[in-house]
Amino acid sequence: MKFNIAVLPGDGIGPEITQQSVKVLRAVADRFDHEFNFEEAVVGAAAIDLLGDPLPETTLELCKKSDAVLFGAIGDPKYDNDPSAKVRPEQGLLKLRKELGLFANIRPVRAYESLLHKSPLKPENIEGADMVIYRELTGGIYFGEKSTAEDGKSASDLCTYSVEEIERIAHLAFKAAQERRKKLTLIDKANVLETSRLWRKTVAEISKEYPGVKVEYLFVDNAAMQMILDPKQFDVILTENMFGDIISDEASVIGGSIGLLESASVGTKNALFEPIHGSYPQATGQGIANPIASVLSAAMMLNHLGLKEEAETVRLAVDLSIKLNVCTIDINKDNHYSTERVGDFLESVI
Amino acid sequence: MKFNIAVLPGDGIGPEITQQSVKVLRAVADRFDHEFNFEEAVVGAAAIDLLGDPLPETTLELCKKSDAVLFGAIGDPKYDNDPSAKVRPEQGLLKLRKELGLFANIRPVRAYESLLHKSPLKPENIEGADMVIYRELTGGIYFGEKSTAEDGKSASDLCTYSVEEIERIAHLAFKAAQERRKKLTLIDKANVLETSRLWRKTVAEISKEYPGVKVEYLFVDNAAMQMILDPKQFDVILTENMFGDIISDEASVIGGSIGLLESASVGTKNALFEPIHGSYPQATGQGIANPIASVLSAAMMLNHLGLKEEAETVRLAVDLSIKLNVCTIDINKDNHYSTERVGDFLESVI
Ligand SMILES: CC(C)[C@H](C(=O)O)[C@@H](O)C(=O)O
Ligand SMILES: CC(C)[C@H](C(=O)O)[C@@H](O)C(=O)O
Repeated sequence: MKFNIAVLPGDGIGPEITQQSVKVLRAVADRFDHEFNFEEAVVGAAAIDLLGDPLPETTLELCKKSDAVLFGAIGDPKYDNDPSAKVRPEQGLLKLRKELGLFANIRPVRAYESLLHKSPLKPENIEGADMVIYRELTGGIYFGEKSTAEDGKSASDLCTYSVEEIERIAHLAFKAAQERRKKLTLIDKANVLETSRLWRKTVAEISKEYPGVKVEYLFVDNAAMQMILDPKQFDVILTENMFGDIISDEASVIGGSIGLLESASVGTKNALFEPIHGSYPQATGQGIANPIASVLSAAMMLNHLGLKEEAETVRLAVDLSIKLNVCTIDINKDNHYSTERVGDFLESVI
Repeated sequence: MKFNIAVLPGDGIGPEITQQSVKVLRAVADRFDHEFNFEEAVVGAAAIDLLGDPLPETTLELCKKSDAVLFGAIGDPKYDNDPSAKVRPEQGLLKLRKELGLFANIRPVRAYESLLHKSPLKPENIEGADMVIYRELTGGIYFGEKSTAEDGKSASDLCTYSVEEIERIAHLAFKAAQERRKKLTLIDKANVLETSRLWRKTVAEISKEYPGVKVEYLFVDNAAMQMILDPKQFDVILTENMFGDIISDEASVIGGSIGLLESASVGTKNALFEPIHGSYPQATGQGIANPIASVLSAAMMLNHLGLKEEAETVRLAVDLSIKLNVCTIDINKDNHYSTERVGDFLESVI
């Protein structure tokens, strides 16, 4: 089969890890006799530097007409500590999510048997942990009206949600729960926030359509604690944009390295696949970044394109590299492989 | 010396734990020859049940004229899953914080040497961890305008901050850092939120007045991960209301039990002391709730009242009870003491 894949390497370690995924995808195309057309475009700080715009029109157009977007990472410290910067790399990613309507960000988190010792958590607490986080991605405080007073003495961000925005992602999460262990946990702050009460009410309503799924409600502060105390209690987590950002990064400690965590962002038409780690500027160009999160994101992409066998093959290749410790320094301290050599290994076994 | 102390036991396990603190405080008064006048008042679900109001006027008045408020816990599940409830227990606590102007919530977190094994984190990762979280308590999304559309199809919460609100708590946090290890970490989401950018700008400005204090900025998603990966990096954490709620509950896993964590909420005139755990309804009336978080909150209160020796005595008594394992079931699984017996022990050694 033939697919057009937009490749947006972005900033920091984005380019070096994405390169490994493209290599792996080419191996998949060879082995399974597909044709993947890769087309690259700039985004983020890289795009600001080149064109003064974190999401150039050409990049957006390319993404819109592609079958899937493979995304690297975004962000550059030179913008972070400049609160008055007019354009920011992150705007590129946020606008892309919004323009492509990628309302559901799906983040699987699991404890790898052979990496249990890598986690800061005790092995017995995480062994067998296996969850998937459904984070709403185009609403909430990320996209509500923002303002700063004329005199610069105050600022505000508005968090809004509509029933419709909640419903569409809730259905995806309930369906995922049906295919898994049949438990869904809604994380909110319904004892304080009006939007959270709307989430709770809407989810309670929808849950009637999924009688086989057990629903639990957890306040976000308690959830942040439960994630560490007893991560095995979670199957499917459903939550709004900001809480999902925090909780999913926190959950990354279960896997032993944030360099292992993939994600898919899906909408009704388009889909984008990216590692959950960021641009990791300190590591840029050193060949130490873990390409696995990006490669697993590529596997999610294959799955999304209907190529189940191919996706499974990539996942098995990754499992093998972890098992054999063909891993970057975040996982293999004593005898680590470079970003490229991990990519080479994955390519070679497919 | 003579002090008037308002006692607000609240809901769930609130009354049983607060009772132990009062007992301990009476022992302190005896030993050090002070006079504490305790006056009780209702708040939260208890107050709704009794008077239809989570913060009755008489309760507020009592708090205003007291030298300090000893607070139990708030919350009742019968309100949590009823998104249309008109009055909620939490409103009592939020209104109390606002009316008393308690803008700074101070939450110390440390790993107890003899409880290292109790944490879900590996002992080597937390040994020596010792931080204090300064959470802004009367601003942000907790208190901004809330609304629900007439048709119930959408809702919103506004997050606002003024420079003044940021400054007053930032000064407290910087001063604390000066007395400690001289590091302050601001947790925000400045790559997305306008209010966070105001926080970052204001804190950067204020930091010039504290040249001895090293300032670091961390995005909240990364912070949620760092808290588990390397909690020892933190000394003083400064953050806004919602992020502080999440991060401090998460940090509780370091101490081995949320039942150990005290907090102080201070303003310019009043001060309130409460455990960070909630009303823990499942445990109510069973005599299994850990009174230590409340007792340590009482110690913070003594400190606030200028009774340093007395505060230190209470803390030493708690250390002793932990050392001797005179502890409730959350800490001492095999041979646990009841809430009351832990209180009795603490009283007896003072
Ligand atoms: C880069 C940033 C805007 C982004 C977010 O907060 O959504 C990132 O943290 C993520 O989780 O994808
Ligand atoms: C009960 C609730 C409103 C409260 C809060 O969110 O502030 C609690 O979680 C806390 O941290 O004191």
